[in-house]
Amino acid sequence: MTAFETALYWLDYAAVAVFAASGALAAARTRQDIVTFGFFAAITGVGGGTMRDLLIGAPVFWVQRPGYIVACLVAAVGVWIFARRGWRFRALLWLDAVGLAAYAVVGTAKALSLGVHPFSAIIMGVLTSCFGGVIRDVLAGEPNLLMSREIYVTAALLSAGVFAGMTLMGADFWLAALVGFFAGVALRACAIRYN
Amino acid sequence: MTAFETALYWLDYAAVAVFAASGALAAARTRQDIVTFGFFAAITGVGGGTMRDLLIGAPVFWVQRPGYIVACLVAAVGVWIFARRGWRFRALLWLDAVGLAAYAVVGTAKALSLGVHPFSAIIMGVLTSCFGGVIRDVLAGEPNLLMSREIYVTAALLSAGVFAGMTLMGADFWLAALVGFFAGVALRACAIRYN
Amino acid sequence: MTAFETALYWLDYAAVAVFAASGALAAARTRQDIVTFGFFAAITGVGGGTMRDLLIGAPVFWVQRPGYIVACLVAAVGVWIFARRGWRFRALLWLDAVGLAAYAVVGTAKALSLGVHPFSAIIMGVLTSCFGGVIRDVLAGEPNLLMSREIYVTAALLSAGVFAGMTLMGADFWLAALVGFFAGVALRACAIRYN
Repeated sequence: MTAFETALYWLDYAAVAVFAASGALAAARTRQDIVTFGFFAAITGVGGGTMRDLLIGAPVFWVQRPGYIVACLVAAVGVWIFARRGWRFRALLWLDAVGLAAYAVVGTAKALSLGVHPFSAIIMGVLTSCFGGVIRDVLAGEPNLLMSREIYVTAALLSAGVFAGMTLMGADFWLAALVGFFAGVALRACAIRYN
Repeated sequence: MTAFETALYWLDYAAVAVFAASGALAAARTRQDIVTFGFFAAITGVGGGTMRDLLIGAPVFWVQRPGYIVACLVAAVGVWIFARRGWRFRALLWLDAVGLAAYAVVGTAKALSLGVHPFSAIIMGVLTSCFGGVIRDVLAGEPNLLMSREIYVTAALLSAGVFAGMTLMGADFWLAALVGFFAGVALRACAIRYN
Repeated sequence: MTAFETALYWLDYAAVAVFAASGALAAARTRQDIVTFGFFAAITGVGGGTMRDLLIGAPVFWVQRPGYIVACLVAAVGVWIFARRGWRFRALLWLDAVGLAAYAVVGTAKALSLGVHPFSAIIMGVLTSCFGGVIRDVLAGEPNLLMSREIYVTAALLSAGVFAGMTLMGADFWLAALVGFFAGVALRACAIRYN
């Protein structure tokens, strides 16, 4: 594995666990058993990346690496144990923001690394980072983010666009990833605070 | 590219743009920002064809050809600018009818051209032409067409069946496509008028 | 075809038809035309297996074998004719339980036979057996099973886990399949009775 692949590998784990936790938090509003809870977390966690891999024709990332599902389940158990306080809704919002920006960068990076056209790679980053949250909201029976007036897709677009732009101009992978990630998180944070 | 492939290519563009416009019209009922609006249009526009390509194992058509997403965004911007009049709901109904019939023909044609069994090719045309609208309605949180009593799936079946039947009997591609297309549009038009 | 493949083949047909009937029963609550009715049954019937095949990168099972869709349509017509009595809701519950356990075993078996990691194969069995019902509920606009407190995913996990465990310990295919199937049905039956 090159350094680039290693980076993608760990970023992928982080984005998956964070989204899984956000799915678990959404599920925690109703009162299912622990298995359904974990199942819901897993779908939210790997949903966006699964969509990305299907679209670009890559083997679905978690199928031969059980570690991803384990990460989702660990995140779900963490939420199950700790999320009985009042900060549940806030935590969901912020975890979602972090997962959104991370997935946007990872999705764009994976698409670029497989030779996808840069324009499509950005779209891929946006589509797949938003898809996890859309699946979560549709399954939870809540109005999904596409129907709200909040700045959400725009934040994903900013992360994906900044990362792709800097990469194409020859910037270092980690620098581009960090700048792209924080740009998206910052925009989403503003949207959460001033909405 | 053979004439057949060229025909499919342009029909695909037309169906995608028309469905994207219908998605944009559905999204226009709530009041999102322009990026979410375009995102919604793009999902509706390429959703059905994406499903078709995943099912028949072909590379997803828009991933390496950014033009499709651009066509969706152009359609979305057109709706954004012009759709502030009273004819919004009517326009959505008719665009949807045209997109439905076009996708049914294109989906069946692509499946047939890849050697899929004719019966499955018809199913593919129906599934994928209806899928764009189903995704749109599920994401928009509206009762989807499968739950209504309207003649919708039947119109797609008519388009796909007529096209596949005529093609198998040796008819010219364009003749079969036009007859199939207009048969579906006509049936759907009757359903819209007399419902 | 080996005996193993033959077994999978027939189990697949059975699970598909049973799920299609459950989809048709759900659709029967609203009053669509027969084509939409069949379409809904087909989506529910093949939805879970389609997801499984896309995830493990196998050709989608029904595309080149029209028999599966025919089985769905036969199941739909059966429901259309017979399901006008009072036992509709009960029948849906029980058919769903049988389909759930059957799909969990079939999904796990197919994934194992293609060399998927056992842990992922179990996840695959659970995901795909639950997915048919989730699609059905989302399209029917009903609160889906993931949001209920019922033991549902757990039953699928039991079927998939028992089957995979026995297979890995060298048990006969049919013995493992039957024990796994009945374990899941029994657990789900308890959940239905004592809820």
